[in-house]
Amino acid sequence: MTVYDVIIVGGGPGGYVAAVRAAKLGKKVALVEADLLGGACLNKGCIPSKTLLNYAEVIEQVDIARSWGINSGSLMLDYKRMLERKDEIVQTLRNGVESLLHNNKVDIYNGIAEVTSGHQVVVDEDTELKGEKIIIASGSRPSIPPVNGLEQIDYHTTDSIFEMNYIPDSIVIVGGGVIGTEIADMFSSFGTKVTIIELNERIIPTEDESASNHLLKALRKKGVKILLKHQVNEVSQDTSNKKLVISDDSGKTITLTADELLIATGRSPNTDLIKQLELDMNGHFIKTNEYLETSIKGIFAIGDVIGNYQLAHVASSEALTAVANLDKPQIKANYSVIPRCIYTSPQVATVGMIEGELRKRNIKYRVYTFNFDRNGMALVTGKTEGFSKIMIDEKYGEILGVVMVGDHATEIISQSSSYMYLEGTIDELAKMIQPHPSLSEVLMESANSLIGKGIHSN
Amino acid sequence: MTVYDVIIVGGGPGGYVAAVRAAKLGKKVALVEADLLGGACLNKGCIPSKTLLNYAEVIEQVDIARSWGINSGSLMLDYKRMLERKDEIVQTLRNGVESLLHNNKVDIYNGIAEVTSGHQVVVDEDTELKGEKIIIASGSRPSIPPVNGLEQIDYHTTDSIFEMNYIPDSIVIVGGGVIGTEIADMFSSFGTKVTIIELNERIIPTEDESASNHLLKALRKKGVKILLKHQVNEVSQDTSNKKLVISDDSGKTITLTADELLIATGRSPNTDLIKQLELDMNGHFIKTNEYLETSIKGIFAIGDVIGNYQLAHVASSEALTAVANLDKPQIKANYSVIPRCIYTSPQVATVGMIEGELRKRNIKYRVYTFNFDRNGMALVTGKTEGFSKIMIDEKYGEILGVVMVGDHATEIISQSSSYMYLEGTIDELAKMIQPHPSLSEVLMESANSLIGKGIHSN
Repeated sequence: MTVYDVIIVGGGPGGYVAAVRAAKLGKKVALVEADLLGGACLNKGCIPSKTLLNYAEVIEQVDIARSWGINSGSLMLDYKRMLERKDEIVQTLRNGVESLLHNNKVDIYNGIAEVTSGHQVVVDEDTELKGEKIIIASGSRPSIPPVNGLEQIDYHTTDSIFEMNYIPDSIVIVGGGVIGTEIADMFSSFGTKVTIIELNERIIPTEDESASNHLLKALRKKGVKILLKHQVNEVSQDTSNKKLVISDDSGKTITLTADELLIATGRSPNTDLIKQLELDMNGHFIKTNEYLETSIKGIFAIGDVIGNYQLAHVASSEALTAVANLDKPQIKANYSVIPRCIYTSPQVATVGMIEGELRKRNIKYRVYTFNFDRNGMALVTGKTEGFSKIMIDEKYGEILGVVMVGDHATEIISQSSSYMYLEGTIDELAKMIQPHPSLSEVLMESANSLIGKGIHSN
Repeated sequence: MTVYDVIIVGGGPGGYVAAVRAAKLGKKVALVEADLLGGACLNKGCIPSKTLLNYAEVIEQVDIARSWGINSGSLMLDYKRMLERKDEIVQTLRNGVESLLHNNKVDIYNGIAEVTSGHQVVVDEDTELKGEKIIIASGSRPSIPPVNGLEQIDYHTTDSIFEMNYIPDSIVIVGGGVIGTEIADMFSSFGTKVTIIELNERIIPTEDESASNHLLKALRKKGVKILLKHQVNEVSQDTSNKKLVISDDSGKTITLTADELLIATGRSPNTDLIKQLELDMNGHFIKTNEYLETSIKGIFAIGDVIGNYQLAHVASSEALTAVANLDKPQIKANYSVIPRCIYTSPQVATVGMIEGELRKRNIKYRVYTFNFDRNGMALVTGKTEGFSKIMIDEKYGEILGVVMVGDHATEIISQSSSYMYLEGTIDELAKMIQPHPSLSEVLMESANSLIGKGIHSN
């Protein structure tokens, strides 16, 4: 029997990146995946949702362009073709992951893994793999809240929503977080009546409050109904309609009906595979030290299964950290500069701390907000909605956080990441030349304003 | 008579930025503009062209989306509405500039300026302005090559092309530089038969060779006819058609006809206003020292009139430098990190040195090119054309230049500007987390490949 240098459980953006990096370092690597290579991100999350959101964006653009004099006939969305294209993109990327693993001579096992000790993984209860080290990258699955009647009816999670074979007339989305708002935006563009039910007093509650308010208004303007501080008490189903009894924080109940119901209330870690081990846990998540090693020496864990951000790019970054630490502790996991992106229209992108967090930590800061409607490129493209907001340390001018709401925010945010990562100062950001015309100019302008040298602002 | 602290000649992105900054520093400022506030960039260049190029982009998108299942009827461009919208955008931004100047109490003189001494500017031959210092930001105008017959026929430059009130069936563009290729791309999307005549052996000859080749192919694929190493010998006109006799480098001549002719062979500095002075010149351009002061003490010059990059954002940057140096030399003009953008589809964006320059300077470098067709977000949006290319110093890994060809390149380039400006290393770029999925990930991947740690590449 082959003894592997490292067995990696999970083929998502944590696991496959760990496998490739370990293999490139000369290690003999096994990767066990129970489902499809690429994980939830590629197959059921980021990639399918961004593809469909891109459709939503194009549909919106066609609509806006009519008022610009770009006149096209009435628009018809071929939903079947859209799903086909999504599948093609997912398949292309999945083939890419498979080729990468093959080219790097990673042995791929398709089956359900169980980690039975610090050196053994059993696949599908019959294949025993031995390894010097193990990396658990088993990811997460949609978390289902305990709602009366839910298990008796048909409902969607992100596992199934992107496979649905028609455009419903109406959908209720339980959860107004990143996933809920993205899918609301998407269906709204397809003409579906969308209702979001959010327990919190605002949508995307972990993100910046003004960004949250801005997105709320944008979604409502598109016709999305958003019920804040509401919870679902009971659900039922007649022939096809779903019926929900919901209540607000005063206990007042109302009843909603819709063609479809999507549960988008977060994700739970996949920890079945470690039930034979006595690993220290962090709530439902596997606990690791700063080197991403679990309480059992030689077993590392990365990605959604350890919690933290539950973002694909964090999992990939943790993968590289864990691999670097396989032989000896070398690099600590670094969460100082993590961009967080929401691909709604307008997009929301954040790096560093938001105002709520700064206040909570009692950090003295200054903030400057620049609205895109004063930017030349935003006027050119008609995407004047949104703003850019920079928070700096009151004393030293260190950039503490940046929030952007608007077109291309998920790309432009990386410039702010760069400044934070390289510890560039607000004076440097103010002096650096941005292309004209570009949306990026708002960063320069905001930085200048923060140091009292704004040209197009105070 | 008011004696101003500084008189600024020219209200473009050099002049108006200088005026606002000087006013904010407490100076009494006069600004003289012969034409419209905002200069060529706002009124006849960047903004009109980017607006029309955005139309081209939307039209292309609508067309591509058909194959995705987003079916709209046949597309009709309302050219008059497009020009109206362009004028609205230009007017909005021009009003913005005017408000800025008013709010900062800058005295605006509308007229033709002549600088008569180090302390005097005469407007329209009758109004004498006295100033402690003068900043010349008089900009540039289209440069017209000496071609037989040209002055006898109707032809366009960028001064008139964005005002043309119909879509011609055919246009010949003389000059395949930034302006020529952008306008070719634009008219091609509107259905016009476009021919570019370029003297050089490639289009955009000052930019990266592989970017130039990529853009050549992209334009040819759209049906743009590009004649390299050709020059125009003679032009004439019958009732409406323009006739051009052109020859290649072997002297072989051919004749072309087209509805319209655009001359896009660069821009000449506006130096009429200094003809009474004996300023040192740098060819046709005004010569300055590193503090942007001319050979006459107290007279500074910035922007297109001093040559260098002839970019709006460089003019604005020089404006801030010149103003800082008005009282005493303080800051040298810094051209180390200047992004250069071409808003064709695909876009081309560059910062730092290109390979040709590195070879010419005998700098030992390593280069890595990552194609967008292997990036998840590019697959999602269908914008898989293009690449990102990073050049680093062979010994120290310093980032020497970045070239991007593709969607949003003109925004994404600022991340590379940040790395170069803050002297971030290739190792840092390799480790920094990029959002997934995003086009920005290609930078991380390229950086990893350059240090032998690529995941999705060698």
